[in-house]
Amino acid sequence: MSRAVFDSSEYQRRIDRTKEKMAERELDALFVSDPANMNYLTGYDGWSFYVHQGVIVTQDRDEPVWVGREMDANGARATTRLDEADIRPYSDDHVQSPVDLHPMDFVAGVLEDLGVSDGRIGLEMDAYYFTAKSYTRLRKNLPEAEFEDTTLLVNWVRIKKSEQELDYMRQAARISENAMQAGLDTIEEGVPEYEAAEAIYSALIDGTEEYGGDYPSIVPLMPSGDHTGTPHLTWTDRPFRDGDPVIIELSGCRHRYHSPLARTTFVGDPPEEIRETAEIVIEGMEAAMDAAEPGVTAETVEKAWRDTIAKYDVEKEDRIGYSMGLGYPPDWGEHTASLRPGDETVLEENMTFHTIPGLWFDDFGVELSETFRVTSSGAEPLADFPRKLFTT
Amino acid sequence: MSRAVFDSSEYQRRIDRTKEKMAERELDALFVSDPANMNYLTGYDGWSFYVHQGVIVTQDRDEPVWVGREMDANGARATTRLDEADIRPYSDDHVQSPVDLHPMDFVAGVLEDLGVSDGRIGLEMDAYYFTAKSYTRLRKNLPEAEFEDTTLLVNWVRIKKSEQELDYMRQAARISENAMQAGLDTIEEGVPEYEAAEAIYSALIDGTEEYGGDYPSIVPLMPSGDHTGTPHLTWTDRPFRDGDPVIIELSGCRHRYHSPLARTTFVGDPPEEIRETAEIVIEGMEAAMDAAEPGVTAETVEKAWRDTIAKYDVEKEDRIGYSMGLGYPPDWGEHTASLRPGDETVLEENMTFHTIPGLWFDDFGVELSETFRVTSSGAEPLADFPRKLFTT
Repeated sequence: MSRAVFDSSEYQRRIDRTKEKMAERELDALFVSDPANMNYLTGYDGWSFYVHQGVIVTQDRDEPVWVGREMDANGARATTRLDEADIRPYSDDHVQSPVDLHPMDFVAGVLEDLGVSDGRIGLEMDAYYFTAKSYTRLRKNLPEAEFEDTTLLVNWVRIKKSEQELDYMRQAARISENAMQAGLDTIEEGVPEYEAAEAIYSALIDGTEEYGGDYPSIVPLMPSGDHTGTPHLTWTDRPFRDGDPVIIELSGCRHRYHSPLARTTFVGDPPEEIRETAEIVIEGMEAAMDAAEPGVTAETVEKAWRDTIAKYDVEKEDRIGYSMGLGYPPDWGEHTASLRPGDETVLEENMTFHTIPGLWFDDFGVELSETFRVTSSGAEPLADFPRKLFTT
Repeated sequence: MSRAVFDSSEYQRRIDRTKEKMAERELDALFVSDPANMNYLTGYDGWSFYVHQGVIVTQDRDEPVWVGREMDANGARATTRLDEADIRPYSDDHVQSPVDLHPMDFVAGVLEDLGVSDGRIGLEMDAYYFTAKSYTRLRKNLPEAEFEDTTLLVNWVRIKKSEQELDYMRQAARISENAMQAGLDTIEEGVPEYEAAEAIYSALIDGTEEYGGDYPSIVPLMPSGDHTGTPHLTWTDRPFRDGDPVIIELSGCRHRYHSPLARTTFVGDPPEEIRETAEIVIEGMEAAMDAAEPGVTAETVEKAWRDTIAKYDVEKEDRIGYSMGLGYPPDWGEHTASLRPGDETVLEENMTFHTIPGLWFDDFGVELSETFRVTSSGAEPLADFPRKLFTT
């Protein structure tokens, strides 16, 4: 019984769109190893990306072919609608083999079997989990093939969301709201950071009254005190102290779709400087969202932020957001459009962005974020959570 | 202020040992991108492996050099003892750049600056996060360099644990015990899978009375019912049903050190067949641990398991365990020694293994595991948790 979470027709549209992009680049086949792209094209879902795996799309076949470890073939049967013949598992002696045997040797055999070993094959050269060794082994095994770098080909198909995808992202947003509230309720002077992490994680998986939550692609991050300028440190046993700013960044997840949310709280009574900074960040973020609509470019959205903070004599030229949705660890971002100077991606309806601007000074930082959908005429934030500097 | 969790002397020993292995292979430099190896050599810790980063070890310098994204340089300052000059951040326009700019262009510049651009440079060709593109960019930027595949060089240094590492693994084992109990206490007929996941995660981060827990490198897995033969599916909204076997695999984590633990429970009254299977798995696993001691090979340990199950006319030739400890998503395994036929690694004191044998039949599976340390004369399980088939 398939646990696939979309209709067949939705997968079909995704595959068709992928094949169009393959045709534009005259590709005979595409080897997809980004787990999010594998899921997008087939529904495949499982914590198996720690071994080599992938999905092959060829121009002359209707369905993709899944390749992975033997013990994960049942997972492919459970989560995809692929025919048995399109599930091609490799034996366990390929896994971390002490002899000269690599899963890509098997993948090369499948590509041969599919009749594309002398064709033009797209590889996601810069995707997570597609290692340098994977590449050199495929080259060695398929000397007649012509390889092309197709790193973001499927990611660019993913950028516009369907109604069903948006539903899952909205479900994730409900979870994000609950988890943010749980974190804010827990943080106070003397409470160790891990207790806040526990409260947030618990809410992320508990989900809502109607449904549970998946594991997010990034763990909850909550840099505090001196470390608000150190965005990717994870929690420790250190207790929060009076005078600590704490930035909470988290995301609910539903069927691998995310809706990230960030807020800043302050342990104790925040100095005026921090209050004012929070006001500027909120005004700038809202200006950015006001600027978003179909037809404008990603860099235009960022510019609205930059123009706003310039009024307060603050200058900062950073990426303030990115396209996102479906994801696996280590990231929920799609790596396509960014809200930053120089990005000329034209916004279209049903693209989704996480905008996360922040301002950092010597000893503190303030950050807030929203995940929004581009509507026919503007931007719709997916979460409904107060935009302000919180205090404990 | 450094959050480094080991003495300087411990890092020094690790670097010295790494340099010895480099010398054996006549390497001038090593570029380490596996986050666990980066942490092992420098203490660097952060959820930043979703962008390109690494640590460079050269034969003629005492300290490694950290290379990463600008916003993570503060994380390097906070978690390592590296000199400011040895923290080399690249600017943010390298991140997911729409133009032809890649973080490895910057890394190549650092390697040049360190005087090794025409030397022999080791690359972890098959490590997580070292992409095909990373390799082709380094080659293009450093045409005079000679590249060697050093995928597991540091991992093999990691295989023998220090007393401090073992302390952290024992702390992780205490967390694993608590989390396993929380999972077993939650699972019963009608409870959705995500509620058990929530109880487990909550216990994993709550840790113990004395300390909290880190995020584990693999999320708690609990295949149930028909899916006990599908080990890497994650939880859903599905309620547990009477007659479901449920396999729980989890690990506490402390300062990135793990101590995984697996048990099987049964919803309702287990059939005799499952009880008997559990007895066989336990007897076989204990035979394997009894066989472990310095001087024996990894495959000998596996053979003790296989000989035991053969008494019951069960045949199975699989990997039943692997060396592990320090880790980041997606894996806590070290990818070095495996307990499987053909692996001739000779066990030494203070190596640590996760042995996770299981038996699967058409409609159910039973799995149990222990993490053990090789002592001077045997094997010491790190967790203290009853070995039996649990019931709800």
